[in-house]
Amino acid sequence: MTDKKKTTIILFSGDYDKAMAAFIIANGAAAYDHEVTIFSTFWGLNAFRKEEQVPVKKGFLEKLFAGMMPRGANKMGLSNMNFAGMGPKMIKHVMKKHNALPLPDLIDMAKEQGVKLVACTMTMDLLGLHQDELIDGIEYAGVAAYLADAEEGNVNLFI
Amino acid sequence: MTDKKKTTIILFSGDYDKAMAAFIIANGAAAYDHEVTIFSTFWGLNAFRKEEQVPVKKGFLEKLFAGMMPRGANKMGLSNMNFAGMGPKMIKHVMKKHNALPLPDLIDMAKEQGVKLVACTMTMDLLGLHQDELIDGIEYAGVAAYLADAEEGNVNLFI
Amino acid sequence: MTDKKKTTIILFSGDYDKAMAAFIIANGAAAYDHEVTIFSTFWGLNAFRKEEQVPVKKGFLEKLFAGMMPRGANKMGLSNMNFAGMGPKMIKHVMKKHNALPLPDLIDMAKEQGVKLVACTMTMDLLGLHQDELIDGIEYAGVAAYLADAEEGNVNLFI
Repeated sequence: MTDKKKTTIILFSGDYDKAMAAFIIANGAAAYDHEVTIFSTFWGLNAFRKEEQVPVKKGFLEKLFAGMMPRGANKMGLSNMNFAGMGPKMIKHVMKKHNALPLPDLIDMAKEQGVKLVACTMTMDLLGLHQDELIDGIEYAGVAAYLADAEEGNVNLFI
Repeated sequence: MTDKKKTTIILFSGDYDKAMAAFIIANGAAAYDHEVTIFSTFWGLNAFRKEEQVPVKKGFLEKLFAGMMPRGANKMGLSNMNFAGMGPKMIKHVMKKHNALPLPDLIDMAKEQGVKLVACTMTMDLLGLHQDELIDGIEYAGVAAYLADAEEGNVNLFI
Repeated sequence: MTDKKKTTIILFSGDYDKAMAAFIIANGAAAYDHEVTIFSTFWGLNAFRKEEQVPVKKGFLEKLFAGMMPRGANKMGLSNMNFAGMGPKMIKHVMKKHNALPLPDLIDMAKEQGVKLVACTMTMDLLGLHQDELIDGIEYAGVAAYLADAEEGNVNLFI
């Protein structure tokens, strides 16, 4: 165990804006020299999906889920004022204008800063997501691993 | 005060998937020997409703609220891809296939493990919910009791 | 640094009920003698908007966002059972009946109790909100200021 402060974030939400908030906090905490973990579960796993389709064998329901869920950070909707996809376009436009990083870049920055990105294996099973379908550089674990991190955490958030 | 680690979760959401996440974390933390409290407030109270209708006297608006809110954990919708009730059926089907416990069983397990389940009395008042309408084995308290627990907590989450 | 316990709340949500929960917890914690901060970001900033329109220069998209977002705490919708605005009316009616404080009063009480209200400058930029459009008595800061508070926090929540 180190003397570093720890921040852990459960990313449950599959909304673009909420994931942005998660990664902005995570990147801030990493810059502050915290040990940071983002534990991605349920719809939050969509942020870790590859954009391209990956050929893996799935059952019918798993295929249905996978087909309906956004493939990757860039495809996610907003929690508010989504307007059938117009909202995300507006937000991304405004972000570009203000030089704010889009979500995929925030994820890359998190990796570069050593933020530990963890995909929840239990919900991967439920939603029928395979490791091949998720981006590189992430770890795989369950709730026990999350708790081991969080019980030493200074800042623990559920997003 | 004991030396045990403490986990407290405010369950605000009335979504099946978010309540699942809350109880999976709670059960995990209890297995890790934490003292665990789930403080259920607003729509989260629906997870503690009995499935059967209980005859209690209510005002008009309270009756309206009670009629529109799902009666019990098994009736709750999803935060995402609910599709007018199809989503929950799909998720439950997939959970059964993968031997994941449905929400009512997660609640029973939490009780067996000694997780303290608390219903927020202020929102019970607002939504017109009576103690007779909620499941057995839960406690009743307000925000002061939550804070007394949470200020000693190692992992505090709002779900 | 004082010996006081600390509570920090990120208010991300623009929902009336979630903001109520945030301010009830904040006011409770302040009554418990905690140092309390509410850091308002994204849609949560709507709770800090003035009710009246304030003439400020904006770009097209910023004007669009500002026009679509609720102006002030009293105009916000519910996270659940909003029914195109009927839900908030019902909730407010029921709150009045039970002598529960409406959101604007909860915000005033928080100010009186010395709860630090902070507006996230980064999202103000993104959504095109100016300081003139937000209520008096709040501070302006970014994620670094939030983390400095939260890393000393006993109760840290994301709402």
